[in-house]
Amino acid sequence: MKTTVGELNPPQRILMAPGPSLVDARVYRALLAPVVGHLDPEFLRVMDDVQAMLRRLFQTENQLTFPVSGTGSAGMETAFCNLIELGDPVIVCVGGHFGARMAEMAARAGARLERIETTPGTHIDPERVRAAARGQRMRLLAIVHGETSTGVLQEIAPYREIADQCGALLVVDAVATLGGMPLAVDRERIDVCFSASQKCLSAPPGLAPFTASPKIEEALRQRKTPVTSWYFDLTTVMKYWGQERTYHHTAPISMIYALREALRLIEEETLPVRWQRHQRNHQALVAGLEALGLELLVAPAHRMWTVTAVKVPAGIEDAKVRQRLLNEFNIEIAGGLGELRGKIWRIGLMGNTATQANVLLFLAALEEILQEEGFRLASGAGVAAAEQVYLRAAAAAGKPA
Amino acid sequence: MKTTVGELNPPQRILMAPGPSLVDARVYRALLAPVVGHLDPEFLRVMDDVQAMLRRLFQTENQLTFPVSGTGSAGMETAFCNLIELGDPVIVCVGGHFGARMAEMAARAGARLERIETTPGTHIDPERVRAAARGQRMRLLAIVHGETSTGVLQEIAPYREIADQCGALLVVDAVATLGGMPLAVDRERIDVCFSASQKCLSAPPGLAPFTASPKIEEALRQRKTPVTSWYFDLTTVMKYWGQERTYHHTAPISMIYALREALRLIEEETLPVRWQRHQRNHQALVAGLEALGLELLVAPAHRMWTVTAVKVPAGIEDAKVRQRLLNEFNIEIAGGLGELRGKIWRIGLMGNTATQANVLLFLAALEEILQEEGFRLASGAGVAAAEQVYLRAAAAAGKPA
Repeated sequence: MKTTVGELNPPQRILMAPGPSLVDARVYRALLAPVVGHLDPEFLRVMDDVQAMLRRLFQTENQLTFPVSGTGSAGMETAFCNLIELGDPVIVCVGGHFGARMAEMAARAGARLERIETTPGTHIDPERVRAAARGQRMRLLAIVHGETSTGVLQEIAPYREIADQCGALLVVDAVATLGGMPLAVDRERIDVCFSASQKCLSAPPGLAPFTASPKIEEALRQRKTPVTSWYFDLTTVMKYWGQERTYHHTAPISMIYALREALRLIEEETLPVRWQRHQRNHQALVAGLEALGLELLVAPAHRMWTVTAVKVPAGIEDAKVRQRLLNEFNIEIAGGLGELRGKIWRIGLMGNTATQANVLLFLAALEEILQEEGFRLASGAGVAAAEQVYLRAAAAAGKPA
Repeated sequence: MKTTVGELNPPQRILMAPGPSLVDARVYRALLAPVVGHLDPEFLRVMDDVQAMLRRLFQTENQLTFPVSGTGSAGMETAFCNLIELGDPVIVCVGGHFGARMAEMAARAGARLERIETTPGTHIDPERVRAAARGQRMRLLAIVHGETSTGVLQEIAPYREIADQCGALLVVDAVATLGGMPLAVDRERIDVCFSASQKCLSAPPGLAPFTASPKIEEALRQRKTPVTSWYFDLTTVMKYWGQERTYHHTAPISMIYALREALRLIEEETLPVRWQRHQRNHQALVAGLEALGLELLVAPAHRMWTVTAVKVPAGIEDAKVRQRLLNEFNIEIAGGLGELRGKIWRIGLMGNTATQANVLLFLAALEEILQEEGFRLASGAGVAAAEQVYLRAAAAAGKPA
């Protein structure tokens, strides 16, 4: 019997949603490296490489640094299920979908939960968090560095200070920022930080880079109850990713090959150059969107470079525009989540997606579709405004654009 | 700055440990298909294909059938964390490392746990389980179909009967058997069954095929407390893998491409032919090992076809032989776990690894190394005995070997 299921033939999209982002040809090629056993001495060397590069990426000396065998949310769950015991007082800052996910995980882990919420798209004022924490001892304070669902960036420093004041461990979700915006785990004294392979690292989805400070290792030893999850239990997972290299679960070998190559590409580009590339492309995108007469969701001071949220103009149908971008231009962007559904578009410029060519093509495509959908705009204005950003950046660097 | 980390260059091993197994060239090629978004209409079709093929593989009509975004143990954890609430009475049959892992997960999920243990390498007598369950109402009865750590196969039927008697849901770990040995979820009335991508399916590690009966969907609705894990919570995961296709977490796109191709290969071969291939190669391996004068760990009636455990002969050093197989022949096999460490070798003949060529090469290599290590055996006896099995099988089928 031949199977009735046809050949795999997915389209070549331009991935401008907030993840997955475009994957480099070298990363695809790494997926072809032959699978070896998870305890093969050659694979142990691959693990060493990946851990060393993740430490440089997170800018940390943390021994406990490795990719969790799951997508970004698996990294998030690893943080919460390991650090929280029943009744632990926990503050979670909720500025959107992923802050809310952290609060949900903290609650399931048994936390006595204090949620500090803000209207999605607005910045969380650290002073509100400070006031909520005042006079209390907290186990943990959790904040999303860049909220993928809104495009809002939160500075780490004030949260570190508040965490210090209430004796809390600081957990930072860097899913949408690590590798795309400055973040330095040791210098900013972050206790736990996690990310995802398919955002600014431009590997396929399936791994969650994770790092935890020596203070966390001590906290794990002090736990009174076992971690409910076996799969995410750091104490045993780290026997595999630590010096013992004791079998815990079979590592996702091919995905780790892909991550290794993605990390090599980042080291070749260097972090400062990569951050600057993300900033420049974000600035060009913003200039273009504003020149088209569109309004950004987030105030200028609080914008991420890697995810930009723009309001769907009145009279324009969100889903139809996204569908046309996909069908006519092969461009994927995302809509809003929760209460922002139908109200915003989210454009990801992450990793390999963050290029001048993608920004210009996207602006041109959006311009054309919006005009056809009856939105009044000045033809070519978006592309022209973006080009000015690139030209100014090139002039400042003394190079042609 | 160029990175100091060199090109990825893992060796081409012959993977004869109990997973990962050898990956087909077509499956590697599927990994090269361009990553698309996890809500892309083209990807939703890929999900449909994978779910339809998984249902045929599990031989089930279960709607709730999908690959968990993690390795085999993630499938195991999905079963236990969703089905158990604090204090639920649970019986877990422990015949080795993976039975023990199930017991550990059940305990962490809050079960009032009854462990039925047996010496690793021996079969669990269902009558002992029946006696332990007698007169009690049980929430769940869990059994490993093929215990990867010992090579012991357990028949499902008696456990279904016992589960019926005590009103328990039947959970079956088919990590090392699905796709390699007969298993029919609906006919055998298994409530939850899970497996792993890198064993008899011959995809890379990173996904856990999972299926649950409609009774489980009802059980989930009846839960009094939320599932502790957010990542593995079936109720929400299934909104993504169910008809709603609502975002839960980003699916590991490339891995799902690979699984899809591996499942297509299985459908092309057909399950009966594939099972027979595993049986025949196992028989040849056993004949060869016995002809070398080696002793199998498991009694003939209880042997898996996919993992064969053979005792390390007296005077031979376990690790040295495995290291020589790896270094001189590029063949990976596994040692024993726990109390079997140093005492057995485990040979996996799973998926693409289960071929005549691999069996003959392995026997020849083992023969040579054992002789050099001072074990007295009749040269060529292992290969000759295995060849007889292939010749008899070919004659019975009326074909040349």
